Amino acid sequence: MTKKFFDSAALTDLPQRYRAQLINCLSGYKSANLIGTADAHGTTNLSMVSSVVHLGANPPLLGMVMRPPSVPRDTYENILETGFFTVNHVHWGIHEQAHQTSARYPKEVSEFDAVGLTPEFKYDFHAPFVKESHVQLACVLKEDVHISWNDTRFLIAEIVQVHVPESIVQEDGHLALEQTELCAVIGLDSYTKATQSVRLPYAKP
Amino acid sequence: MTKKFFDSAALTDLPQRYRAQLINCLSGYKSANLIGTADAHGTTNLSMVSSVVHLGANPPLLGMVMRPPSVPRDTYENILETGFFTVNHVHWGIHEQAHQTSARYPKEVSEFDAVGLTPEFKYDFHAPFVKESHVQLACVLKEDVHISWNDTRFLIAEIVQVHVPESIVQEDGHLALEQTELCAVIGLDSYTKATQSVRLPYAKP
Repeated sequence: MTKKFFDSAALTDLPQRYRAQLINCLSGYKSANLIGTADAHGTTNLSMVSSVVHLGANPPLLGMVMRPPSVPRDTYENILETGFFTVNHVHWGIHEQAHQTSARYPKEVSEFDAVGLTPEFKYDFHAPFVKESHVQLACVLKEDVHISWNDTRFLIAEIVQVHVPESIVQEDGHLALEQTELCAVIGLDSYTKATQSVRLPYAKP
Repeated sequence: MTKKFFDSAALTDLPQRYRAQLINCLSGYKSANLIGTADAHGTTNLSMVSSVVHLGANPPLLGMVMRPPSVPRDTYENILETGFFTVNHVHWGIHEQAHQTSARYPKEVSEFDAVGLTPEFKYDFHAPFVKESHVQLACVLKEDVHISWNDTRFLIAEIVQVHVPESIVQEDGHLALEQTELCAVIGLDSYTKATQSVRLPYAKP
């Protein structure tokens, strides 16, 4: 395939929106998750996040990038205020509602109501799960790392509850997520799902 | 779908390998990238990484999780030593070779030779690209963040070169990556590709 080349100067010179589209595509497929929170008064919030990343299995940790808090960020503020949030997988049946949560609703409007998803409270966890999601995680904030280069935050959290469909749990603990029509994100606005997958054996020299 | 529930105690009690498989699946689809490095003497190294994440577009930044450096980690050491690495997308045509780079080869063996991929040096960049990859990035380390909770590292890097197939660059900067048969990873060892995708309009209330 004939390649197009951008160096640092070319990237800097790109129009802002073009650069945002391009650079957001460069990491490859991104995970599609809905983050559920509630403030101290119980007002719920839901936001689409494509930056959840595995950090470790023991203890079970994940990381999540949050945009600069220079404009109101209800999700980030609720997490700092309470320490709790949920991670809910986005599947093909709810990807349009998930994307719609990225619209800027006023703080008093819950994105659950606005986009038509159902908050689910269970096991005494403060933050709401998304009832329609097949895989749901309850998380507790451990650390809020400030990335000085662009004022983003990298939140580190421990997974304290896991809810997964029984039918996709394999004998060795692997999850056949493609059976849930799990979505991936490309760039800012492209959603995709995989229909087949292959497992490879543990690699040895 | 009937749900299986794990709380913190249940997760802690799982056999180590089962837990590793399960927890690695929880973030959803992960990006599939090959990290190319060379030490100060020019010895090349290549490793499969599923934790590259978008950090920001201006400046163009990405993050990458590295496992604890308690055992020899050539990629991490080469990046610290030189400051340079490449990120190369894994597509369906090379996913088996990419996975095979995770075998523990001795330091004097280059994974390029061992798995049959081609190092490509260009534009005076110190680290090798993967010639077979459709999307190639040159990156410069900006910060090595220590995650104290499990001794992992979160590397922050600036993207200083972008090489992408001309044919997938859309008018607004979006990349039609599904046309390259880009792979995603589930858990530790499952590879998948998407065949269709849909773009959604900018969300407004």
